[in-house]
Amino acid sequence: MASSTLFSMCSLKRESFDIKAINSNKEFKFNASNLLNRLPVKAMLSYDFMNSRLLTDENSLKCGQSQRLLRNRIQCHAVEVEKVPVYTMGKKFQLDDVIEAQQFDRETLNAIFEVAKKMENIEKKSPGSQILKGYLMATLFYEPSTRTRLSFESAMKRLGGEVLTTENAREFSSAAKGETLEDTIRTVEGYSDIIVMRHFESGAAKRAAATAGIPIINAGDGPGQHPTQALLDVYTIEREIGKLDGIRVGLVGDLANGRTVRSLAYLLAKYQDVKIYFVSPDVVKMKDDIKDYLTSMGVKWEESADLMEVAAKCDVVYQTRIQRERFGERIDLYEEARGKYIVDKDVLKVMQKHAVVMHPLPRLDEITVEVDADPRAAYFRQAKNGLYIRMALLNLLLVGW
Amino acid sequence: MASSTLFSMCSLKRESFDIKAINSNKEFKFNASNLLNRLPVKAMLSYDFMNSRLLTDENSLKCGQSQRLLRNRIQCHAVEVEKVPVYTMGKKFQLDDVIEAQQFDRETLNAIFEVAKKMENIEKKSPGSQILKGYLMATLFYEPSTRTRLSFESAMKRLGGEVLTTENAREFSSAAKGETLEDTIRTVEGYSDIIVMRHFESGAAKRAAATAGIPIINAGDGPGQHPTQALLDVYTIEREIGKLDGIRVGLVGDLANGRTVRSLAYLLAKYQDVKIYFVSPDVVKMKDDIKDYLTSMGVKWEESADLMEVAAKCDVVYQTRIQRERFGERIDLYEEARGKYIVDKDVLKVMQKHAVVMHPLPRLDEITVEVDADPRAAYFRQAKNGLYIRMALLNLLLVGW
Amino acid sequence: MASSTLFSMCSLKRESFDIKAINSNKEFKFNASNLLNRLPVKAMLSYDFMNSRLLTDENSLKCGQSQRLLRNRIQCHAVEVEKVPVYTMGKKFQLDDVIEAQQFDRETLNAIFEVAKKMENIEKKSPGSQILKGYLMATLFYEPSTRTRLSFESAMKRLGGEVLTTENAREFSSAAKGETLEDTIRTVEGYSDIIVMRHFESGAAKRAAATAGIPIINAGDGPGQHPTQALLDVYTIEREIGKLDGIRVGLVGDLANGRTVRSLAYLLAKYQDVKIYFVSPDVVKMKDDIKDYLTSMGVKWEESADLMEVAAKCDVVYQTRIQRERFGERIDLYEEARGKYIVDKDVLKVMQKHAVVMHPLPRLDEITVEVDADPRAAYFRQAKNGLYIRMALLNLLLVGW
Repeated sequence: MASSTLFSMCSLKRESFDIKAINSNKEFKFNASNLLNRLPVKAMLSYDFMNSRLLTDENSLKCGQSQRLLRNRIQCHAVEVEKVPVYTMGKKFQLDDVIEAQQFDRETLNAIFEVAKKMENIEKKSPGSQILKGYLMATLFYEPSTRTRLSFESAMKRLGGEVLTTENAREFSSAAKGETLEDTIRTVEGYSDIIVMRHFESGAAKRAAATAGIPIINAGDGPGQHPTQALLDVYTIEREIGKLDGIRVGLVGDLANGRTVRSLAYLLAKYQDVKIYFVSPDVVKMKDDIKDYLTSMGVKWEESADLMEVAAKCDVVYQTRIQRERFGERIDLYEEARGKYIVDKDVLKVMQKHAVVMHPLPRLDEITVEVDADPRAAYFRQAKNGLYIRMALLNLLLVGW
Repeated sequence: MASSTLFSMCSLKRESFDIKAINSNKEFKFNASNLLNRLPVKAMLSYDFMNSRLLTDENSLKCGQSQRLLRNRIQCHAVEVEKVPVYTMGKKFQLDDVIEAQQFDRETLNAIFEVAKKMENIEKKSPGSQILKGYLMATLFYEPSTRTRLSFESAMKRLGGEVLTTENAREFSSAAKGETLEDTIRTVEGYSDIIVMRHFESGAAKRAAATAGIPIINAGDGPGQHPTQALLDVYTIEREIGKLDGIRVGLVGDLANGRTVRSLAYLLAKYQDVKIYFVSPDVVKMKDDIKDYLTSMGVKWEESADLMEVAAKCDVVYQTRIQRERFGERIDLYEEARGKYIVDKDVLKVMQKHAVVMHPLPRLDEITVEVDADPRAAYFRQAKNGLYIRMALLNLLLVGW
Repeated sequence: MASSTLFSMCSLKRESFDIKAINSNKEFKFNASNLLNRLPVKAMLSYDFMNSRLLTDENSLKCGQSQRLLRNRIQCHAVEVEKVPVYTMGKKFQLDDVIEAQQFDRETLNAIFEVAKKMENIEKKSPGSQILKGYLMATLFYEPSTRTRLSFESAMKRLGGEVLTTENAREFSSAAKGETLEDTIRTVEGYSDIIVMRHFESGAAKRAAATAGIPIINAGDGPGQHPTQALLDVYTIEREIGKLDGIRVGLVGDLANGRTVRSLAYLLAKYQDVKIYFVSPDVVKMKDDIKDYLTSMGVKWEESADLMEVAAKCDVVYQTRIQRERFGERIDLYEEARGKYIVDKDVLKVMQKHAVVMHPLPRLDEITVEVDADPRAAYFRQAKNGLYIRMALLNLLLVGW
């Protein structure tokens, strides 16, 4: 890498800088567009190559904000200039926030998966296990989700980072006294370096990200998005089947209400020659918006009432839970829907040898326990992949790649 | 620092020693007055200068307790003798507990603020970020306060310490089975090095401190005290205005029930030439005890019904939330009180350029959102200062300065 | 230690190997009997002595499971070959799970106590305080027990390990959606290295251990077992009295419902010449199964209605709380039982000088507060011993001894 000019990507958002170019005179232009309510800011800064640190020259800052606010908000991280991996040369690889599955293009997905694969090999007490030492993650959960929370907290701690936990922010926090989400975010961002948020309202994560000066990860916002689940699902398919182009996926169960299968369908549309089969009871069929989207993206899909036939063709049988709470008082409909498509030993028998069964968990009896012992039962490995994906995201959001 | 005699201050309380003097013969006198129910104990101990450790000679201990208890309780920390900062020379600077705002004199406040300022500059992965490595803080919260808890836990982790969390000790702990606070403290002190306690009863923190052999920090006890909030308020004024003597402060909103403004008034009385304006609806006026106290301390104060006039004069406009829960069924009174004094753009217009708006948070609409973008809106910086103050206190209580 | 052949014990269970012997050719046989549903597996592996790491040769693995599952489950920890303490020479000392008090023989108890004693002396910032660095413990509590949880979490952190906490898994987790305990365990084991579980159902810990590929510690499962409490009780007697053979123990209070005294009776039966006195109100007398067990083991016991007489004879007076919840609506019976046997100053007067009062805590008034100041009041030291026992167990389960 020549010392005259280089493209680098850094951690940063409001409290640090988004370096675009450094010249040989130890000066460089930067674009701190996410600084302070996302107003654009431009300035010249000095860079101390010996110590790999930015020397902020506040006087050279030009922006639409008063000097005072800047003094309080602009604090450079000690940014180390590292070799940039090939796939980000001249086109830095960096994430600001993780809000929705649609934000990722195919190239970004590949890059995240590459990092996730490296995470699988991080060993205890190795340098890799200390990448995020000194960083603090706040888990701000407005509704409980022990599984998702533990997965994120494990990911942070496996990389040497620390965690501030709120398991039930809705009931306990100042939200109960009427504080806005924005005010809560402004306070919590003062205590932490990244916020993982779960909320009961669709769109809450986007609002948080618009306010926060630190990265936000959406860990589920109501019926809206759960992007890290979608990422780990696609990652699991790639790890288990070895490819994403040309795969055949059967989505089974509650396709109307499950945000998981909806997000997965969005992401699969980014790959070539994918075919999707929808297998669901009539009352919880896949909605037209997804079908239309797939069609517009050139993804082939069909509906089927025959799980055996679909299972025999597919690389992936993605089973989901029928959610009782969606049926209100029509327990009869729930019971009918629930028992209709079960993945059991008979389904395994018709599945191909290389194929896998996936499930976002928790499961009830839509996959029978006898399936667990089969090597093609991928759902617990899938859960573990959630750890690697979250490690990768925390790494990319906090220190970059 | 001569090696013949030195004054040192140490962490300590019951489980360690309060070293007063060390002579050149590697022996020194110490005064372990806080040991075991705070009975005075005197003894000669040896000190290993090479390894900077105390060599406890149990036989030389003379005290009113049986030898057996001592064996169990007296355990020296590995005490490092460091250079003592000037302002504590011959007069060590050390805190035992943080129980109430009144315990601090002006000199102590200055010293705490000096440490807090240093905390603002601690960087990730620097040696400073590991000052409390190996120390364990227990957050024993008998009523939830996510904001305060996260602030303390962030402070501890920013200094390399670890945390044991109980978010809802009242419901979950043995308290529900009828255990006394004293017994709970005696158990929890066995697991941790410092206890941060929030309780629903006034005076609970003092009871805990009387029992505990480790430091207690009061994180709010009912309508009683919330001393770290008072400290961060005064620290914020000093950081924002640049001085504390001669300032003019307007206290606005619920002055009858807010422990925040009451504690702040106590602390401001320690400074010279301060003037306080009380602006509040009639039903929640400042009570006479505070007014009398201020008068007795020579602090000028006056009540006013005109927020605009006060705002124009003051260095600090300290707004507070009208607490609905104080009005019982008289919602009409609450609504009337609540809408009376709002800090909005019009108030900003009359305020001086150097003045600031403060608020303990959470806020509802007593400060309008349009105020947030003004550089004089100091309330989120104030929340962040809570982090630095708590870092300073943890440092002072656990390893001294 | 000769380099030709050595016996070593390692961390292990499913995700690592149980090394039996290493020869000089850098190859050794191992027995991974706990691997994958506890099926036996045998294989030859290479061992890199320079780097103290196992080099897994997957091709040499022979087992009844498919290669695929193995690829996912068999991951060697970086195992360091250390000097083996004398008492485990040729007979490694290792724990798989801690499920019930009965699983420990006298030799194992002694070994655990030896480790626990070493734990008492681990100092802050010493190498010993980092033994478990990089390890993650999940506390999966289906019913709250702040005291027990904090004790385990403190133990883990005192050894440099990290913790994932769930204080109320029953209400919050996917259990509420109908997930089986087995599925929850399979997910959580993906995020952590050891699970400390408290459950409301007897036998839950055993079920978890049968499923998990990582160690399980039972932190209480319903009316069943609470083995770490039993261990710390015996450890406390040994520390306070100096021996276990030949001791006389008075068990007082609710002997019918307290799992603590039942487990303690089981463990005491492993020692020589022990005599146990049962002192309890008629409605909560010790049940016949324990009496029969003691008789069959040659342990002398008798029932007594005279606490003073028993206290005068015993080395240990073990008081317990009468649990109100066991009496339903018969509050009259509860009140009668509760007031019958109180340990107060009069009891202390008849007790021998070397004897101690113990209690599992929390206590109400079955031990009066005036007793606390007496050196023979051992119950808070007993609680602290729980920390050392748990440190020892975590050490033994995660990295061995």
